[in-house]
Amino acid sequence: MAELTVGLLLYPEFEILDMAGPLECLNILSVYMGKKLDLHIISDTMDPVGPGTREDGSSTFAGKQLYVPTCTVHDAPSIDLLIVPGGPGSVKKDVMKPFVEYIRKLHTDAKPPKYFFSICSGSLLFAQAGILDEQSATTNKAFWTNITAQGPRTKWIAKARWVVSGNIWTTSGVTAGIDGMLALMARIWGDETADGVEATMEHNRAREAGEDPWAEKYGCEDVLPVDK
Amino acid sequence: MAELTVGLLLYPEFEILDMAGPLECLNILSVYMGKKLDLHIISDTMDPVGPGTREDGSSTFAGKQLYVPTCTVHDAPSIDLLIVPGGPGSVKKDVMKPFVEYIRKLHTDAKPPKYFFSICSGSLLFAQAGILDEQSATTNKAFWTNITAQGPRTKWIAKARWVVSGNIWTTSGVTAGIDGMLALMARIWGDETADGVEATMEHNRAREAGEDPWAEKYGCEDVLPVDK
Repeated sequence: MAELTVGLLLYPEFEILDMAGPLECLNILSVYMGKKLDLHIISDTMDPVGPGTREDGSSTFAGKQLYVPTCTVHDAPSIDLLIVPGGPGSVKKDVMKPFVEYIRKLHTDAKPPKYFFSICSGSLLFAQAGILDEQSATTNKAFWTNITAQGPRTKWIAKARWVVSGNIWTTSGVTAGIDGMLALMARIWGDETADGVEATMEHNRAREAGEDPWAEKYGCEDVLPVDK
Repeated sequence: MAELTVGLLLYPEFEILDMAGPLECLNILSVYMGKKLDLHIISDTMDPVGPGTREDGSSTFAGKQLYVPTCTVHDAPSIDLLIVPGGPGSVKKDVMKPFVEYIRKLHTDAKPPKYFFSICSGSLLFAQAGILDEQSATTNKAFWTNITAQGPRTKWIAKARWVVSGNIWTTSGVTAGIDGMLALMARIWGDETADGVEATMEHNRAREAGEDPWAEKYGCEDVLPVDK
């Protein structure tokens, strides 16, 4: 029996480090520390999926990177932690439809995940599924204005490596997913476990959610919900 | 015509962030900055390969993560940059044999890669292929004594996020691959390009090779070649 069952949502044109940062943290916990975890890699179909578009096939640099799903949004088993990476695909509403629908259904499920976790523009899918309505969240700073404008019912916090709002964890751009996942691990398993994972990765994580130099570098400011 | 053709070597039980860190840097260059790059994902067979063992199949947390190769060590086209991740598989001599053999042949090829690049214990495969004989290199600090003992003809530098020795770039544990790849990008395309990639990832890289707090934290010291 797994201590934590993880669902990783992979759509065409996800960002590879958004996926691999949190996954590396969990792999260390599982492979090096012997923690019993389970994983479902969830896409819209069973076709391999990657940072490239489906139209490109495997003809581009990103398109050649293909990951094998283990189930689909239509038949995924119940999970404890949903991980949603960002990436260029996240802004393509038509392609994202089944993924957004899955998140919406999961949130109102009789047995919803204990944690929702997004990296980068993955929070846009949360916003579009309506699960960030009246919630605080963050997203990447490089495309701040574009992404936050598409989530008008959310309070977007600029100077944040990650934001926790109830059971929804949203993190900033790309490598922020590592720091956010280590913070979540500290919450679930304690600081010592998170410190051990961090040291195995030789990564200097942000220890506080507000340690985010990128908000200032990109000139990002908080965005309030439009209808408030 | 690609400006740089990258070969990514993937063996059973590679470390996922070792792979994804450098790949993310190159994806940003390709997807967001429009640089013409090409990629070959090279394994020993065309079977999907991942951070788990082949024996586990897809039954474990790591085993469920499977990546699709585009060619094998037996038929890979010529490349400009070879990337070799580390991971638990790297110390399994029998499984590594075809990969080590490939690296050895590549190094003595009529048209060898311009750059060899390893992350974490990937440098062990370089050492075993003989391409680190009388060279300086580094590897991860978490398993320093174990890995360096298996490369007795190499000068192992402890306090180094990465080491450049001729055209061979070796980096330290896991996230050091990101810093090393950004340093290589700065070498090839200039600081401005590397800075842009770094900012897109919202990553604070080590700017100097010697910025490595982990050597001291793990108490690692330089290891001289045994036969010197």
